[in-house]
Amino acid sequence: MIPILSVVGRSHSGKTTLLEKLVRELTRRGVRVGTVKHHTHGPVTVDVPGKDSWRHKQAGAVAVVLASQTTACLVRDTAGQLSLDAIAHRYLDGVDLVLTEGFRSAGAPKIEVNRAALGIPPLCGPDDDLVAMVSDRETGLPVPHFGLEDILPLADYLESRFLRPATPERLELLVGGRRVALDLQAATTLSRVIWSLVGDGREPEPTVAVELRIRERSA
Amino acid sequence: MIPILSVVGRSHSGKTTLLEKLVRELTRRGVRVGTVKHHTHGPVTVDVPGKDSWRHKQAGAVAVVLASQTTACLVRDTAGQLSLDAIAHRYLDGVDLVLTEGFRSAGAPKIEVNRAALGIPPLCGPDDDLVAMVSDRETGLPVPHFGLEDILPLADYLESRFLRPATPERLELLVGGRRVALDLQAATTLSRVIWSLVGDGREPEPTVAVELRIRERSA
Repeated sequence: MIPILSVVGRSHSGKTTLLEKLVRELTRRGVRVGTVKHHTHGPVTVDVPGKDSWRHKQAGAVAVVLASQTTACLVRDTAGQLSLDAIAHRYLDGVDLVLTEGFRSAGAPKIEVNRAALGIPPLCGPDDDLVAMVSDRETGLPVPHFGLEDILPLADYLESRFLRPATPERLELLVGGRRVALDLQAATTLSRVIWSLVGDGREPEPTVAVELRIRERSA
Repeated sequence: MIPILSVVGRSHSGKTTLLEKLVRELTRRGVRVGTVKHHTHGPVTVDVPGKDSWRHKQAGAVAVVLASQTTACLVRDTAGQLSLDAIAHRYLDGVDLVLTEGFRSAGAPKIEVNRAALGIPPLCGPDDDLVAMVSDRETGLPVPHFGLEDILPLADYLESRFLRPATPERLELLVGGRRVALDLQAATTLSRVIWSLVGDGREPEPTVAVELRIRERSA
């Protein structure tokens, strides 16, 4: 499964700045990064040049997509906050790593940013799944510490711990909003079942991507 | 499968205005509409209040998501234009109808808008899959005609022709970028196979949504 890491920290600790630097460095190394930010301040309003799509949204569309040769942009209503797993599965297919800003309670391993100048202790305690502390002081927490500007060693650490071996998995499965790991054998089995249903007796075509959604049936 | 209809027409014929009115009327009737617009003028740039997500994108992220309790917003790079089927499957799950602006060559049934004042003939000919003409003149094309302000009769027509019976399908399948229709029996079979792989011997839980992606293997 695509690894997910959450950058967490108190307000004004520098989460966005750290994320920005990490994305830049990992991208330079050839890592395809997807990011997720938790938006807490009311509904998302989006403004794009040539606002026709948002005229659709204003008129009542529950979802609008703007698609070009190189980009896809989606704004849609959701029934509550989507799980990080659902976001990763649906929207971040094909990336090597997902970095989130916030989502402290979502259960992904965490990198905390903490600044001495804020004068307050870290957000995470020993029971959180903290994997790195980025700070200008020693916090006493039993994880590797990196200075606020130590982007290269932090990227080395994340890459070696979360991105190797970089064997892309063929199958991703989301069951009830949670990602489920399946092995190659299971992927092959499913692929064969699907091809037996749609392939008109043909053999599976291994280069053709398959996506399937079985919707929740209202109880 | 969720029906897809394309609103097409020449420049300045009033496609966005018609779409906006149609979305408003269908939404008033309780239809959940998703819209797709083709963006032709270079990459999409998006500006949101609290621009942290777009700092991530600027830093090199291939995909960024902004998620709140009520909304999800995604901007991602794509390798070429996504098919309408892929857009509908991935991004517009749960809507009752997809309306597109443009996408004339994508193969969905079309509604053309044409204004006499433009002084040019319709875009669509008899061989296009045209299902309605919205115009202030008679075009001679063998499809139902609606005046530019005849939104209610147009909505009646679309609703009766494309939205009934409104039996939601449980399974959606996308194979190589094309949606494939499967019946309830096939959905049940697939559901059982997936549960046999992930369910630890438990019976399928019919209220749990399943999403699966088998990725393209590089040839």
